[in-house]
Amino acid sequence: MTRHGAVAASWIEYRRDWTPIEAEVIEEALVTIYINGRELATIMSTPLEQDHLALGFLKNEGFIGGLNEVTDVHISRDGCCVDVWLDHSVAAPKRVIITSGCGGGVTFDDPSIGIEPLRDEVRLEPYRLFDLLNKLHYPGSLYARARGSHSAGLSDGVELLVQTEDVGRHNTIDKLLGASLVQGIETNGRILLATGRISSEMLRKGALMGCPIIASRNSPTSMSVSMAQAWNITLVGYVRRDSLRVYAHPERLGYVDPVQIMPVAGD
Amino acid sequence: MTRHGAVAASWIEYRRDWTPIEAEVIEEALVTIYINGRELATIMSTPLEQDHLALGFLKNEGFIGGLNEVTDVHISRDGCCVDVWLDHSVAAPKRVIITSGCGGGVTFDDPSIGIEPLRDEVRLEPYRLFDLLNKLHYPGSLYARARGSHSAGLSDGVELLVQTEDVGRHNTIDKLLGASLVQGIETNGRILLATGRISSEMLRKGALMGCPIIASRNSPTSMSVSMAQAWNITLVGYVRRDSLRVYAHPERLGYVDPVQIMPVAGD
Repeated sequence: MTRHGAVAASWIEYRRDWTPIEAEVIEEALVTIYINGRELATIMSTPLEQDHLALGFLKNEGFIGGLNEVTDVHISRDGCCVDVWLDHSVAAPKRVIITSGCGGGVTFDDPSIGIEPLRDEVRLEPYRLFDLLNKLHYPGSLYARARGSHSAGLSDGVELLVQTEDVGRHNTIDKLLGASLVQGIETNGRILLATGRISSEMLRKGALMGCPIIASRNSPTSMSVSMAQAWNITLVGYVRRDSLRVYAHPERLGYVDPVQIMPVAGD
Repeated sequence: MTRHGAVAASWIEYRRDWTPIEAEVIEEALVTIYINGRELATIMSTPLEQDHLALGFLKNEGFIGGLNEVTDVHISRDGCCVDVWLDHSVAAPKRVIITSGCGGGVTFDDPSIGIEPLRDEVRLEPYRLFDLLNKLHYPGSLYARARGSHSAGLSDGVELLVQTEDVGRHNTIDKLLGASLVQGIETNGRILLATGRISSEMLRKGALMGCPIIASRNSPTSMSVSMAQAWNITLVGYVRRDSLRVYAHPERLGYVDPVQIMPVAGD
């Protein structure tokens, strides 16, 4: 009865009376990432695409620059360990910062430093985002089957190039980067889509991937708004069927500041 | 313009056309917990009730048994550090496990071990949970003002005894325990209410607090269902205005297995 990423479950539903239901719940398991034989991090994750999770995590955390530095990736038979071997040694992280992230909330960097403002000049019609966000919860997806999971996608503004699902919000972004590395898909200049809330850590991952537009079905936090403003990232929240909110740099979605287009007095 | 827990923000809303909005977004900041002068953990949190967060975190992670072991708690003026001094020394954690939790996702224990099944015989009408969950998002709450936050509550089945809010899902539970310690409110045998998803880590915190009923507006994961079954905890998800789902031990909500009440054949 077990299908990958979700497991068979039964529950009793109450709505004036009780009804037994047989369906699925999202799968959650510990995944430990080893780098050159040394344990690096243990993450609660949905055990699917653990290799993408590990590769994206290592890239987002600065342990690797690209796939060319990776000599081997191996997922243990029970799925709970990923061994990554590199062509170079790595220094142990100085300090672990725990994030508020819904999913693999760990990073070894201070999220607020060390990123240059993005220089990309992408432009997009708002309605494209309504459409793209809707595609993340496609029929047959883990979310459609079991709920309780987050989705993320990478887009050129028209198509979804990569999409991922995980019980952890951050894991979806790491998996997205890992899958992009493996499939040779450029993340720079692409649009990052997410169903989960955009915390500082989510924004940092998107900035490191070079995504000038980051759009979510959910809300941003105060830190992510500040960081998006500073790094020239268009931050979009609450993307619904026909509405959205832009918290920073709305010009990429065609918004023109009314001050700039107001007629001069006496005109 | 800044109010505690949320900060003034402006955004541009698109719904066929653009409208500028002035409101608030949820505040997110780094909070570092020091124990006996040594740094223990840095957590992304909403900087409100940081002392409760620190005390609940230390109790849930087993560093303290109760408030009587705490000699001093001090929040730094800028709110980013909490110093906790104890009447005893503590061993450094052996290993950090990072959880999938939306909020302060750190624990120093393996979530799946070391808890005895709860022996509590609490009984509750399902409709009580509809009412209690609704109360978590009260007018004037951070959620009502800024969204992007989670809420948690402790109840005797009728009233909310304590309630907390935070950008991090786990932080709400730690704050709840910390506030209960400070106010002298027993958590054993109480009902734990949460708006966020119940991952294994959330369930573990609830079990450590001795809560025989854990109810959320959101979904559980496969691990939390297994743990609730093993630890004799009534796990409730998707609590709505008039419906809910029980994933483990529905008997506390009055569900009787139909097999037990079916008439004997020939009767």
